Amino acid sequence: MKYAVLGTGMVGHTLATKLASLGHEVRMGARTADNEKAVAWAQETDGDVGHDTFSAAADSADRVIFAVNGARVLDVAEAVGPATVAGKTVIDVTNPLDMSGGMPPSLIPEMSNTTSAGEQLQASLPGAQVVKTLNTMNHLLMVDPERVPGPHDVFLCGDDEAAKDATREMLAEFGWTDPVDLGPLSAARGTEGLMPFWLRMWGTVGNADFN
Amino acid sequence: MKYAVLGTGMVGHTLATKLASLGHEVRMGARTADNEKAVAWAQETDGDVGHDTFSAAADSADRVIFAVNGARVLDVAEAVGPATVAGKTVIDVTNPLDMSGGMPPSLIPEMSNTTSAGEQLQASLPGAQVVKTLNTMNHLLMVDPERVPGPHDVFLCGDDEAAKDATREMLAEFGWTDPVDLGPLSAARGTEGLMPFWLRMWGTVGNADFN
Repeated sequence: MKYAVLGTGMVGHTLATKLASLGHEVRMGARTADNEKAVAWAQETDGDVGHDTFSAAADSADRVIFAVNGARVLDVAEAVGPATVAGKTVIDVTNPLDMSGGMPPSLIPEMSNTTSAGEQLQASLPGAQVVKTLNTMNHLLMVDPERVPGPHDVFLCGDDEAAKDATREMLAEFGWTDPVDLGPLSAARGTEGLMPFWLRMWGTVGNADFN
Repeated sequence: MKYAVLGTGMVGHTLATKLASLGHEVRMGARTADNEKAVAWAQETDGDVGHDTFSAAADSADRVIFAVNGARVLDVAEAVGPATVAGKTVIDVTNPLDMSGGMPPSLIPEMSNTTSAGEQLQASLPGAQVVKTLNTMNHLLMVDPERVPGPHDVFLCGDDEAAKDATREMLAEFGWTDPVDLGPLSAARGTEGLMPFWLRMWGTVGNADFN
């Protein structure tokens, strides 16, 4: 499968590396084609990997993962352009956090509660099929559920069943055996809304290996 | 111990009944002293129980539980009056849900995200020591943790350690062996923010016996 992973941070890095290790073709997308973190990732990672602009990476892929800072998700969608991802599964793992007020961050008011980053991403890319998933946990756990012992869950939601099936296929490759389907994409209001709790649990637990 | 339980809905009813069964003196508070649900509860419940106005019930008690509709928490605080609860532990189990948009409800914007019902209740009752707890689950589970098998958690947060100790004592009587302390009352932003997720899980699971 051909994946584009948009975002060069820890989340994008972790997802792109895992997908490449599974034998997929992976292009890391960034604002510029020569983003130094994307270049370094492609150089150090085995497999059919590369780096490009957000739009060119998305254009080359069957499935496009948004792994950018949640506050930037609409900017990146604009850079990608709706035509580039029309008919494609777009997997959104972002959270719309406002870092301007210090730690722990709150949600960006205009992207939360009665709306969500996932829904706004879908509205900005109307021809794509957006699925929200993996945004309720630390990046290392996303691709390695056994880091946390015992039963625990990953959630997904979206308005297109085929895109949810495609996402379940990817999740299964990551080791998630039975994702919880919360229904329509508007359920992203619930999962993105977990983040303020998650961040406080992180402070209480002292590490990110919980779910 | 003398408890006031403010609120005559399912949550107030469940908490008041459990506290009475544990041998505590319980007054159910409502807008009027002769609220028919409070009267009926007092008639059908064994023990040292009664009903009164919000303010008179709170005045009679050592510990005051806010179990009203979250949208009404500040109205009820005003009816109680700050002097009535000065120096007392106020246990807030509410969630600031906006029911006006249908199901599932969202949070009330001006009571969530960068603030919380718990913090606003504390601000309106500055002499009281507010602790937020039990707001992350169904009312039956609040007083009967064994309804859900296996390990699961209750959370509390607040700015006063003695009030948190008093709350832990009540939680232990309900069967909660090791509450997770999320720190200051501002952590209520996290636990109240769980509700939009909880409501969708409820829809997915099909019953409220999860945590």
